[in-house]
Amino acid sequence: MASFSLASLAVAIAVDGAYASEQVSEFKLANGLTVVVIPDHRAPVVTQMIWYKVGGADEPPGVSGIAHFLEHLMFKGTDKIPSGQFSKIVAKNGGEDNAFTNHDVTAYFQRVAKDRLPLVMSMEADRMVNLRLTEEDVATERDVILEERRSRVDNDPGSILQEQMMAALYENHPYGIPIIGWEHEIKALNREDALSYYKRFYAPNNAVLIVAGDVEPDGVKTLAEENFGKIKPNASLNGRVRPQEPEHFAPVKVTLEDPRAGRTTVQRFYLVPSYASAAPGEAEALDLLMRVAASGSISKLYKRLVIEDKTAASAGGWYSDSGLDSGRLGFYAIAAEKVSAEALEKAIDGVIENLRENGVTQAELDRARASYIAEFVYTSDSQSRMARQYGWRLATGMSVEDVEDWPERLKKVTVEDIRNVARKYLIDKNSVTGYLLPSPEITSSIGEKPAHAPGKGKS
Amino acid sequence: MASFSLASLAVAIAVDGAYASEQVSEFKLANGLTVVVIPDHRAPVVTQMIWYKVGGADEPPGVSGIAHFLEHLMFKGTDKIPSGQFSKIVAKNGGEDNAFTNHDVTAYFQRVAKDRLPLVMSMEADRMVNLRLTEEDVATERDVILEERRSRVDNDPGSILQEQMMAALYENHPYGIPIIGWEHEIKALNREDALSYYKRFYAPNNAVLIVAGDVEPDGVKTLAEENFGKIKPNASLNGRVRPQEPEHFAPVKVTLEDPRAGRTTVQRFYLVPSYASAAPGEAEALDLLMRVAASGSISKLYKRLVIEDKTAASAGGWYSDSGLDSGRLGFYAIAAEKVSAEALEKAIDGVIENLRENGVTQAELDRARASYIAEFVYTSDSQSRMARQYGWRLATGMSVEDVEDWPERLKKVTVEDIRNVARKYLIDKNSVTGYLLPSPEITSSIGEKPAHAPGKGKS
Repeated sequence: MASFSLASLAVAIAVDGAYASEQVSEFKLANGLTVVVIPDHRAPVVTQMIWYKVGGADEPPGVSGIAHFLEHLMFKGTDKIPSGQFSKIVAKNGGEDNAFTNHDVTAYFQRVAKDRLPLVMSMEADRMVNLRLTEEDVATERDVILEERRSRVDNDPGSILQEQMMAALYENHPYGIPIIGWEHEIKALNREDALSYYKRFYAPNNAVLIVAGDVEPDGVKTLAEENFGKIKPNASLNGRVRPQEPEHFAPVKVTLEDPRAGRTTVQRFYLVPSYASAAPGEAEALDLLMRVAASGSISKLYKRLVIEDKTAASAGGWYSDSGLDSGRLGFYAIAAEKVSAEALEKAIDGVIENLRENGVTQAELDRARASYIAEFVYTSDSQSRMARQYGWRLATGMSVEDVEDWPERLKKVTVEDIRNVARKYLIDKNSVTGYLLPSPEITSSIGEKPAHAPGKGKS
Repeated sequence: MASFSLASLAVAIAVDGAYASEQVSEFKLANGLTVVVIPDHRAPVVTQMIWYKVGGADEPPGVSGIAHFLEHLMFKGTDKIPSGQFSKIVAKNGGEDNAFTNHDVTAYFQRVAKDRLPLVMSMEADRMVNLRLTEEDVATERDVILEERRSRVDNDPGSILQEQMMAALYENHPYGIPIIGWEHEIKALNREDALSYYKRFYAPNNAVLIVAGDVEPDGVKTLAEENFGKIKPNASLNGRVRPQEPEHFAPVKVTLEDPRAGRTTVQRFYLVPSYASAAPGEAEALDLLMRVAASGSISKLYKRLVIEDKTAASAGGWYSDSGLDSGRLGFYAIAAEKVSAEALEKAIDGVIENLRENGVTQAELDRARASYIAEFVYTSDSQSRMARQYGWRLATGMSVEDVEDWPERLKKVTVEDIRNVARKYLIDKNSVTGYLLPSPEITSSIGEKPAHAPGKGKS
């Protein structure tokens, strides 16, 4: 119920027919609920996900954390479900459930035996509009979330640095505000905030229902009509209104000294488009660029810093591609012993400069693309991943076709395209660099603590 | 009509009786309008100012610049005043007028012969609620403001850097958003935005009227009742709701390279309390600290960097003390020839470290206090400054007494108080450092262009 970030979101597709024989189908109920059915008959199980097109970036000013807070509160009760029983009922029926909140989406899901789909769908439809919250529910859960923040952020210098870097990267857009919320604002969240947000954004015409598994579209449609069909749309829903980023003019550096930091770590974020916001082809090129540049131990970054120059103990990178309004590239390196942050940054800069100058080779591109394809096939084997990927894309304004066309678009990316996005987006003024430095008082213990592995920057 | 920052706001007081024989008086109309009368009979002139308790930090998300835009539009028409005639009528009557917008306040003022006070008061009361805007008014003025932004910000690397530093200093509070607005948001401002903001915030119960000059309280009261008394209060006014800053954990550096930059300049901002937000005595101590540390050529910063070490061509600092929610300390230095930004920053750091360690001496404190007192006496000679200072303080939640007690509070500050605030507030994690660097391509012309003098950081 509590996670608020997702692992990599590489779009999964039924590639090369292995699993593409059955079509993904999409339809809309009269009240605006989008329904996507992903048949998968290998086992008699079903994954239900409901995606609300709302997240941390849609919060009113000063009420940070309410999206995530409400996600927690959705596991309290309704008139039919006693407070705290939602997950217990799912578990008693042999299923499992969870939820997460991101800047752009809030999703709830259950995996159950196929004959329990009517049960979980009725429960999900019920809590879409019938949530009942007591002051006690709210007070208790607020303490849970404050503890979650303490353990996930405040006790982790890497998370603190990431929070500060995000705040620096986004001068105007609410992506700069942490999804879990600023502590002082979490403390002030109340029942009214939660219900006001709930009534504003939780409605069939602001949601996408994904049902993946041993089902047929017609059966799902009947069930969806029965359960969700009776819910009225929210007529006052008027899309997402978010402040967008201005042009950036100056690179930013954030330096966090913390006695709890393990080794010196350098991170670099660049503001780039996401799949949802990019010009045609650019997101695909960025995806492949980062695969070659920074993914795994055969990446350019890792080879140069860890294997050749030995300035880093580890290095990598990522493309946060799933945002509605923008994405991010990230590079990181954990310093080898006695290597300074400045030297490490210079080493990273060398690799980035080389990407701008020379892009990638055809062989590198081909290998990156092939490894993606291999992953798609693997991913398409996972019911929950398929559900998640369709859900995420549809909840951020893309279509089933956008998802399904993706391998074809990937195939069209050329080395020139990659060099072009490298030159266009790997530019200083759109970057934030983060230094995580062990405080002087514990310098002597460097190397004794496990190094912090920087996250994907999605939270 | 267009300025959106103010010069130093050192609170002016009638000190030592020179001008204190006549009491400043304050009263409130039934509709909530606060009125302050500052008698000054040296000449038959009057300064009228109306202060609205609203500014750039009260704008809805994504609508940056609307406070300042509305300030411009207030010079369009009403049913009684044809569009664009407001200032012309004032001028025809021998007066002058102006206005400005800050993050916390929006103020309009006229200076006229005393017999014209009824005229300008009727005009000011009229436009408090009767503004009429055409689409053409709005479109024209939007272009004016975009041009204002281009000339004031986009053509001035120092202003760009300041904007970026403010965005970095404020992670959550709208003080990080420029008062003039982000360009892409100014472009989208429309008539509806302006009128909605106007109706929400322009009301007698959200304003302070200051009348300074050759008047008596009773006469002003009668006039205010006649002109403003008939305006209904805004019953739905519910104060200012602004996101506040979270704890900061990491110092930030912003580096702007720009071919138009003159010399290398380093700036350092610290987040500190303002007069309105500080614990008792802290703002006074910060005021005196900065006076000693960075004001003028006898300051510690100037003496060390410019005279002794010769690392800087100029250096100074300021305390931005007037915010409703927080203030800022600023230090800057313009590099001497061939001095790098890093070396210059190190020199500034040396002075700041010394302030933290040693504070100021009794002699330095006494001299700073004496020079303030001298300025107060001087300031109290200026009708418009007196009006401005009472207006600003009252519009940010302080009282006439707070203003008048100030010299006494200043007198109580000790060297220990100053060292305490230096230690408490001159801390890295609450700071942002800005580098302004001439771009490589024009390095050869360094010294030929006039150096940029960093502003006071109030915009």
